[in-house]
Amino acid sequence: MKVRRSNRVIEMTRYLLERPHTLVPLTFFSEAFDSAKSSISEDLTIIRNTFAKQGTGILETVPGAAGGVRYIPTVDQSTAEQFLNEMSTRISAPERVLPGGYVYLSDLLGEPEVLRQVGRLVASQYAKKQVDVVMTIATKGIPIAQSVAYYLNKPFVIVRRDSKITEGSTVSVNYVSGSSKRVEKMELSKRSLQKGAHVLIVDDFMKGGGTISGMVSMVKEFEAELAGIAVFGESKFEGERAVPAYTSLIRIDSLDAINNQIKAVPGSYMTQTDFNVLDAAHS
Amino acid sequence: MKVRRSNRVIEMTRYLLERPHTLVPLTFFSEAFDSAKSSISEDLTIIRNTFAKQGTGILETVPGAAGGVRYIPTVDQSTAEQFLNEMSTRISAPERVLPGGYVYLSDLLGEPEVLRQVGRLVASQYAKKQVDVVMTIATKGIPIAQSVAYYLNKPFVIVRRDSKITEGSTVSVNYVSGSSKRVEKMELSKRSLQKGAHVLIVDDFMKGGGTISGMVSMVKEFEAELAGIAVFGESKFEGERAVPAYTSLIRIDSLDAINNQIKAVPGSYMTQTDFNVLDAAHS
Repeated sequence: MKVRRSNRVIEMTRYLLERPHTLVPLTFFSEAFDSAKSSISEDLTIIRNTFAKQGTGILETVPGAAGGVRYIPTVDQSTAEQFLNEMSTRISAPERVLPGGYVYLSDLLGEPEVLRQVGRLVASQYAKKQVDVVMTIATKGIPIAQSVAYYLNKPFVIVRRDSKITEGSTVSVNYVSGSSKRVEKMELSKRSLQKGAHVLIVDDFMKGGGTISGMVSMVKEFEAELAGIAVFGESKFEGERAVPAYTSLIRIDSLDAINNQIKAVPGSYMTQTDFNVLDAAHS
Repeated sequence: MKVRRSNRVIEMTRYLLERPHTLVPLTFFSEAFDSAKSSISEDLTIIRNTFAKQGTGILETVPGAAGGVRYIPTVDQSTAEQFLNEMSTRISAPERVLPGGYVYLSDLLGEPEVLRQVGRLVASQYAKKQVDVVMTIATKGIPIAQSVAYYLNKPFVIVRRDSKITEGSTVSVNYVSGSSKRVEKMELSKRSLQKGAHVLIVDDFMKGGGTISGMVSMVKEFEAELAGIAVFGESKFEGERAVPAYTSLIRIDSLDAINNQIKAVPGSYMTQTDFNVLDAAHS
């Protein structure tokens, strides 16, 4: 019987981890393992406690006939802090400075482990908010959107700067690129977003904020709701950006392209995330 | 003590699932849980058997002082078959036919569950082969590359059709677009690929194969090795495509843009994957 329980909790752990934010009825597990609901309940208590202790996330129980259990990925304060400090150190490397004051980040945003953590962090911040779809703009925002979407278990949509035949009819909006002050155009496939959907906008990097503003206009154009904005990195910016409230994971505090010097620090994530809400739900 | 073992296997399961293809020394677990190596070995046997029984993957044991345990995600034949049949049915919908004989797939390739399965399938095929990096081309190939990279636990790199300042110096190659017969250019950041690296090329869809050929040239340009080619979908094509051996998950068997008819079927994946090798390793 000891092995039986171990087998069950291993498979239940895998099943739940692969389906964040999905309500799984207890009957599903009791049928799959041919076990009494009371045993399944005990299994879930063990999983819940282990997830809480290890900072994996919250296992939420929904009581009643239509109830079940739901895994909500979260990140605790110390893990978030450690990850953002580590990222800051890695980004503060002289060889990342590109001509024109740009920063090379493609390697980081192509590492599965980095993307996993970025996705967890952003999804954790929105764990208790309504998000129906994650939106980003091609190209570099895509891996971040995909990872956030994974941990929220919601679809993501890709806005494009160039129209493609394979998108079908599109809606387009004009926006002013904050850094170059040029007027540009972005497009999104008509069928990819529903009216009233709650949209979380994510992108890799914010300079002037023009691209983000464009996506905010796109959300309005579709009569959808803005759930929030999150970027991996933001540059230092003189004055106010013309964008609604946003969260950054990393901020470039100083960048000297002449002398190849760069200093990255954790962004607004740590101060804007209410870790207590998540911690409270753990207990 | 019963709960103790359960707690351990839950946390070990999570840890291993999040680190595919990574060798974890037994001492890591025995220190983390303050448990004897013999207990950890027993835990791993239970996890191994559960993973095998549920088709989650292989838990490979590497003996010796530098040894440990490694989780290799795999897909069994029936799961692969079921997924590809389901995809074929979903793609065979008249509303997916776009003018010019293109197929709308953006919704599917924005669903976390679909991407998870696509990634597992391709990674499973390459579970026992050397892959150092996954390569794709912007835009639609990115989510597939990211998911494959996740399950192989390797980085991915993005080739672009347009040069971007944030990539630094790039290497560019010309290629003939198979469908339009135009000569186009693609670029990859110089620092993103090492000489001699084994590259797995993935993309969303292959028509003439020109884009894939371009990426093959790119691999050669970097003096890297081609590990293989995998595409989500391929159209029917008269004659030979000018590309090396590749695997497709889905094939569009017929498409009638006038009458909005489309018929998708499983591609070459099922016949090209040696499920026995994987099954054998299970036991």
